[in-house]
Amino acid sequence: MERTGERNFFMNAEIIAIGSELLTPKRVDTNSLFLTDELNTFGVEVVMKAAVGDDRERLAAVVKAAVERSEIVILTGGLGPTEDDVTRDAVAQALGRALVYREDLCDAIEARFRRMGRKMAEINKRQAFIIEGAEAMPNDRGTAPGLWIAVEANRVVALLPGPPEELQSMFARECRPRLAQLVPPLVIRRLQYRVAGMPESDVDQLIAPVYKEYQNPATTILAAPGDIQIHLRARCETDAEAVALLALVGARIEALLGDRIYSRGGETLEEVVGQLLRNGMATLSVAESCTGGMLAERITSVPGSSDYFVGGFLVYNDAMKIDLLRVDPSVLERYTSVSELAAIAMAEGARDRTGSTFALSVTGIAGPGGGTDENPAGTVWIGVADQRGAQAKRYRFLGDRTRVRRLSVQTALDTLRCRLLAPAGAGIQRARPNR
Amino acid sequence: MERTGERNFFMNAEIIAIGSELLTPKRVDTNSLFLTDELNTFGVEVVMKAAVGDDRERLAAVVKAAVERSEIVILTGGLGPTEDDVTRDAVAQALGRALVYREDLCDAIEARFRRMGRKMAEINKRQAFIIEGAEAMPNDRGTAPGLWIAVEANRVVALLPGPPEELQSMFARECRPRLAQLVPPLVIRRLQYRVAGMPESDVDQLIAPVYKEYQNPATTILAAPGDIQIHLRARCETDAEAVALLALVGARIEALLGDRIYSRGGETLEEVVGQLLRNGMATLSVAESCTGGMLAERITSVPGSSDYFVGGFLVYNDAMKIDLLRVDPSVLERYTSVSELAAIAMAEGARDRTGSTFALSVTGIAGPGGGTDENPAGTVWIGVADQRGAQAKRYRFLGDRTRVRRLSVQTALDTLRCRLLAPAGAGIQRARPNR
Repeated sequence: MERTGERNFFMNAEIIAIGSELLTPKRVDTNSLFLTDELNTFGVEVVMKAAVGDDRERLAAVVKAAVERSEIVILTGGLGPTEDDVTRDAVAQALGRALVYREDLCDAIEARFRRMGRKMAEINKRQAFIIEGAEAMPNDRGTAPGLWIAVEANRVVALLPGPPEELQSMFARECRPRLAQLVPPLVIRRLQYRVAGMPESDVDQLIAPVYKEYQNPATTILAAPGDIQIHLRARCETDAEAVALLALVGARIEALLGDRIYSRGGETLEEVVGQLLRNGMATLSVAESCTGGMLAERITSVPGSSDYFVGGFLVYNDAMKIDLLRVDPSVLERYTSVSELAAIAMAEGARDRTGSTFALSVTGIAGPGGGTDENPAGTVWIGVADQRGAQAKRYRFLGDRTRVRRLSVQTALDTLRCRLLAPAGAGIQRARPNR
Repeated sequence: MERTGERNFFMNAEIIAIGSELLTPKRVDTNSLFLTDELNTFGVEVVMKAAVGDDRERLAAVVKAAVERSEIVILTGGLGPTEDDVTRDAVAQALGRALVYREDLCDAIEARFRRMGRKMAEINKRQAFIIEGAEAMPNDRGTAPGLWIAVEANRVVALLPGPPEELQSMFARECRPRLAQLVPPLVIRRLQYRVAGMPESDVDQLIAPVYKEYQNPATTILAAPGDIQIHLRARCETDAEAVALLALVGARIEALLGDRIYSRGGETLEEVVGQLLRNGMATLSVAESCTGGMLAERITSVPGSSDYFVGGFLVYNDAMKIDLLRVDPSVLERYTSVSELAAIAMAEGARDRTGSTFALSVTGIAGPGGGTDENPAGTVWIGVADQRGAQAKRYRFLGDRTRVRRLSVQTALDTLRCRLLAPAGAGIQRARPNR
């Protein structure tokens, strides 16, 4: 789901991606996502995107229609040296302009090959042709130069290379400054919140009254299982104005969400938890049943996580819980492994066995099989232990196996985050066997 | 990378996705991937894809151009009941046809709401308008009916709902039979190989001489880190012909790749390994260092994996390797934890501690930090133990932390697969400390 209040655009753009591989069942164009983000920053709205194969006539027709409709037309790909690379020819045809050979561009391409210790092939000369009246944009990551064509005073066509690293580098160096001259300059400031432990609908219901009041800053909400991102983007005439506007709206959102906000700068939950552990000179271990390593995988995806993560136990059946974590067999017999006491014993077992400051445990039924009336698939207990004691909480996650496991991991990380933020003196209510 | 030799298409199609959310920096249209695959199956080539916002005039112009160019035009999305849903109106305008109210469609929508215990809102009546001359296609997953419009004898426009589950269900039930009447019927047969343990370039070099000989079957190669997929698709007039053609080309490819092929039906490597373990009534445990749980996560992503996976150890530092797996401290001191003997001791430790039939171990440097001259980042030892003994092999994986970890997991699973396929009597050369 995505909502945005932004309507303050000044110009329209269309993005056309060229290449037959973009018309197969396995490939989507993603350059347009980068370009849309960049264009939006300049107050330019993307009103249409297209993917076209390596067909000159068809591409020329599509470009012609786009140039008639929109002030900015950006083409990506098809600038290579082979016969399949038709973008230069198609745009020349659409604009009714000639192609001109540029000796200096050919020299630059030849020099690039020489630096790599290779000889330029005759075929690469095709890349030294530019459209009449175009400015060549140097490519510092590849051979194909880009082209910037001012069709009219406020109407441009840009040709960019297809490989993302070439495109992004060229856009930053060559297109941004040119766009800044084209579009009334405004200052952009962004603010991002990330929220765990709340469904998207609850987050939205809570903050909608605030963000709906404002067209500026624009608010976008992005949701993944257990993880909500709130993006604010302010566009103002001065930096001070943008900062003040974000501070005003941000404060209202923070007041509503409080501790549910785990990050204000885009850090992931595993990065935030890692930083809290590092700050507290604390270490962590895990005991995973139904998540089968996914929790530790998330924690150790952060470079340098060996500073605070010591290790843990994958206990995929009762015997392992007993043998490796010394969970009392009578607990499993009486309450099963999907129970508060099992989760607590697992967290305590991991902490005792590793000597870590904190330990997390996850035990439940990821599904699709294995559920019972009492504990249907999606039932998960998450436990946490530290020197203050241990506690566990029951969750019921909905969805398929992957979703249940992801939500379990996200919730376990957030459980630890809350524990790390709790005042040092705060005790944990230690659950006792109820015999 | 993707290569295909298929050029035997009979008709052209264009796909137009409608919705302003598809023009934001965060969202791409993926319905077109499903539709492209389906259309290709009918011998229809997708020659252009577009994403257009909720703007009636612009959409009408785009549809008009598409209908002039291509025999099949499929629109997705914008069939909802609100003012933002402009697809019906835009297509009517593009084709110069009127919108007609259909009482029976309104009754069907009303009945659907009634079944959900809700009352149809007045606004939903908009969904009961169809374009003059169109056939309504029932929607069994939502309220919006689809439309199939035969513009000429061999030229159609189809309007499908945007939500993927509605679109896919409607396509299967309503569009496939209609397309079969439109397009000369041919039989399609597919064959898929999955290959582990070889770089894509090696696979391609090996089999290119074979697949380049044939336009039919069409060959597509898809690559993920450590995992190559080879798709063959034969299109023939009879089923027997297609089966024979795939058997012929498939046999040539199998002869070249041999045991590197781990799957012939699309199963994942973790599913194949799981099935081999289950067939052999064998169990598995793991000892993970640098992969930090990713190996076990892959293994346990398969439903029912508790039949053969018992658990394991996350040993993220030397102390854990010694304490949990009883690795000899002198081995770590003398050879470090990134060594053959450490990997062997870890696999043996996991097997001893859990009593599993097989054990896998992974120890290395995922990077970006932690590398040395002798063991640069990306150096990984992978060990396997069973009743025949234990062995380990050194790898050097290139790429970032995530890629190194993924390649390590893939290689570990393939190591186990090869071990499971080895003749029962085959001994393992047991490495001995070299003191």
